[in-house]
Amino acid sequence: MNTTRNYLKKLKEEGYSVFTDSYEQNMMFGYHLRNVSGKVVFDMFYRSVPDGGGYAICAGLDMVIEMIQNLKFTSTDVEYLRKCAPYSEEYLNYLQNEYKFSGDIDAVPEGTVVFPGEVILKVTATPMEAQHLEDIILNAINSQTLIATKASRYAYATQGEPLLEFGLRRGSAYLGSVFASRAAYIGGCNATSNDLAAKVFDIPSTGTMAHSWVLMFNDEYEAFYTYAEVFKENIILLVDTYDTLKSGVPNAIKVFKKLKAEGKLPKKYGIRLDSGDLAYLSIKAREMFDKAGFKDAVICASNDLDERLIESLKKQGSKINVWAAGTKLITSYSCAAFNGVYKLAAKERGDVLEPVIKLSETKEKITNPGDKTVYRIADKESGYFIADLICLADEVYDTAKDLVIFDPEFTAKKKLLKGGTYTMEKLLVPIFRDGVCVYENRTTNEIREYAMKQLSHLYPEIRRFDNPHKYYVDLSEKLYNLKEKLIAEHSFAG
Amino acid sequence: MNTTRNYLKKLKEEGYSVFTDSYEQNMMFGYHLRNVSGKVVFDMFYRSVPDGGGYAICAGLDMVIEMIQNLKFTSTDVEYLRKCAPYSEEYLNYLQNEYKFSGDIDAVPEGTVVFPGEVILKVTATPMEAQHLEDIILNAINSQTLIATKASRYAYATQGEPLLEFGLRRGSAYLGSVFASRAAYIGGCNATSNDLAAKVFDIPSTGTMAHSWVLMFNDEYEAFYTYAEVFKENIILLVDTYDTLKSGVPNAIKVFKKLKAEGKLPKKYGIRLDSGDLAYLSIKAREMFDKAGFKDAVICASNDLDERLIESLKKQGSKINVWAAGTKLITSYSCAAFNGVYKLAAKERGDVLEPVIKLSETKEKITNPGDKTVYRIADKESGYFIADLICLADEVYDTAKDLVIFDPEFTAKKKLLKGGTYTMEKLLVPIFRDGVCVYENRTTNEIREYAMKQLSHLYPEIRRFDNPHKYYVDLSEKLYNLKEKLIAEHSFAG
Repeated sequence: MNTTRNYLKKLKEEGYSVFTDSYEQNMMFGYHLRNVSGKVVFDMFYRSVPDGGGYAICAGLDMVIEMIQNLKFTSTDVEYLRKCAPYSEEYLNYLQNEYKFSGDIDAVPEGTVVFPGEVILKVTATPMEAQHLEDIILNAINSQTLIATKASRYAYATQGEPLLEFGLRRGSAYLGSVFASRAAYIGGCNATSNDLAAKVFDIPSTGTMAHSWVLMFNDEYEAFYTYAEVFKENIILLVDTYDTLKSGVPNAIKVFKKLKAEGKLPKKYGIRLDSGDLAYLSIKAREMFDKAGFKDAVICASNDLDERLIESLKKQGSKINVWAAGTKLITSYSCAAFNGVYKLAAKERGDVLEPVIKLSETKEKITNPGDKTVYRIADKESGYFIADLICLADEVYDTAKDLVIFDPEFTAKKKLLKGGTYTMEKLLVPIFRDGVCVYENRTTNEIREYAMKQLSHLYPEIRRFDNPHKYYVDLSEKLYNLKEKLIAEHSFAG
Repeated sequence: MNTTRNYLKKLKEEGYSVFTDSYEQNMMFGYHLRNVSGKVVFDMFYRSVPDGGGYAICAGLDMVIEMIQNLKFTSTDVEYLRKCAPYSEEYLNYLQNEYKFSGDIDAVPEGTVVFPGEVILKVTATPMEAQHLEDIILNAINSQTLIATKASRYAYATQGEPLLEFGLRRGSAYLGSVFASRAAYIGGCNATSNDLAAKVFDIPSTGTMAHSWVLMFNDEYEAFYTYAEVFKENIILLVDTYDTLKSGVPNAIKVFKKLKAEGKLPKKYGIRLDSGDLAYLSIKAREMFDKAGFKDAVICASNDLDERLIESLKKQGSKINVWAAGTKLITSYSCAAFNGVYKLAAKERGDVLEPVIKLSETKEKITNPGDKTVYRIADKESGYFIADLICLADEVYDTAKDLVIFDPEFTAKKKLLKGGTYTMEKLLVPIFRDGVCVYENRTTNEIREYAMKQLSHLYPEIRRFDNPHKYYVDLSEKLYNLKEKLIAEHSFAG
């Protein structure tokens, strides 16, 4: 009997050449057929910060790199495409036997704090190649940046107290959740419950017991004591199966007393609350533990927490000191998408990269034309990030000189930076050159450390949840003038 | 230079044995060590319908089956676990060399309409085995049921007009999006833009052009005409790159006129709107096309549509007749999680499966105890679904006899079904027996057809978005009495 379709097996055997929207394949064929060649520049950037926040933490580049390094149209890809549209056999042959990515990519490292409108990733390649990568780039970076950013908000709310990611059961299917766990860790979680993510990305794993464990024994005390006997060094007991304060906490205390008497109480012990009024229950449980001499018992909580609820629980004086986040973190529930886009910025005509603009009736949706780069300007003394400057790729700055930057939405709003008081760092670093990866990847732990360091350079006003301070992302005068010129030309043309 | 971490490669080589929360591994070890054996029954069910809707469409079983069929602890799994907790070498050896799933699973087929509280999937196995599967089951079914249900809401709003899924760039990472595309198709989409999903699941693929295509040519007309020449049979032109009504639609009409004159106008032609006031633009575009003699030109729209916006556009008299849904479908943006849970319902003591109940201060959170099954009761004549009945697994019904069902929340609310006027169908079907899959899977297309048929048996009142009619999910008298008895016992014990 054919009892399974083996979809996972098939998917694991697949490469990434058709991990695209169909229209990319259409356009690729069109460019090939009509010999639309020369170099083009595509930018990835995003338009607004999720949850009305002040920043995002970029993640997902690692996946982009790996997919591009393994781009190869297979015979089954070609077979599939043959059914989709009138692609010529010459073209399908070319795809399978000759086509490869040969372009350049520059991008911000994973863990970098990024702001709306600035280039996060830039592809310089043939139209066909650049078009091919659109979804690989957007899918990886949008999905992981969303979760890394959300996790950083949770971590801001816990104020340094441990934050555990428990989202697997409510996250997206299979590897979707595994990469979300990775992103959550990068953004500030201290550990994940997802063993597959922990194993592959070398992330600390964490977990205790479910209600089913408690129900599996004759009574709650037996369940708790058995757990303590088995796990010895890390005893966090789930106390809400019957009644948190009347049964769960007293039984936990009974177990801890016995362990203490036997000299077996480990450093890491305590309880997990998973339902009810978490502020009230944690305060009462704290009192009970303190009275019984267990002042260092951990109180972990885990019921549909989000960053706002954590903030509220803290305001209410809750005694929770370990925070476990599931559903609302792994899905970024309150804002479930990151709106990164991928837009043509320049195309070669003759030997010149000619800037391209995409108009819109909404001013913010008009793209920044041309081959660009982004500088991050920081205060030399404090290290705090002051502003980002988007400019044309060939512009050069001397930080010994004064620099005037201005708000592109409100050009009269200017800021003078005195020479010698600021630093400028190029945000985009080389990732691919002529199709070859030139970027030394970092481990997930290194990326997380980098993200934590990046966040430490943000003024606190940018991290707050309500009406965060808007970080300056300015255009160079040259870029600003170019943009205005192109808008004016098109307006006359229209 | 080590230029990539090869995470995707590693993940593809991984099995599913540690695709778990860490606490499952802990509990498994505990059950093994303390010989907690005998059979147990775990139920998967969900508590509330996303978006305040009236039903959900179950999806994800295929993935559950495939993962369970390929469960095998490898040497690297064991190596990983050794670092996590004080698992004994005896146990790790057992995992790697002897452990396998040997239990039974019953579940509703994918595409089945399901309601809160009823068993969607039931595992009967050893405590260790049943615990092991928790996340495999919840992750697959929660993630895919969420999207299938959302897609069915979109399809309800489009009233039979084609619905295209364009979500890849905003969906979750990699295979997360691929399975979301599958689920969206099962729930009612007619095609996906995601080529990898289309290839592997044999779903129709769809796609046209991006703004970048238009920008890549000298002008919009050239871009449109080139596209028409290349793609011949399916010419949907994106008209909002410069100005929809002043430039895009007129250029499209110019192209269609030329094709018509040459006898080359295909059946499938038209435009896509991707920004601006979609109602207004579609009405104006329709007028322009009709006036030019193109009454069958398609008007597709695609800008952040959700089911409410589609309903609103229809009310405004929009002339959109093909609907493309991206971000807000693929993420189920307005309600980004499906709250399926997995709870212990019975455990063997001696030779008897003893019912287990999990209490809660919230009445709806108290579980239904015992080894259960679910019947769907339908009107014999119309085929409409009337109610579902959750009962103990051994209860037998005779549809020739009268049946009284009652609301478990409000027991006085009774309904009499006259013998011979109704049908009863068991919702749960055998999936695994003694660890072997006994379920003949269906193709994604067959699952979709089944889902569409299921939806056709729902009273329209259950499908509407605002205050949908609550479908009856009743408990048998025997189950109701058992539940009340267990609650009372525990209350006295407390």
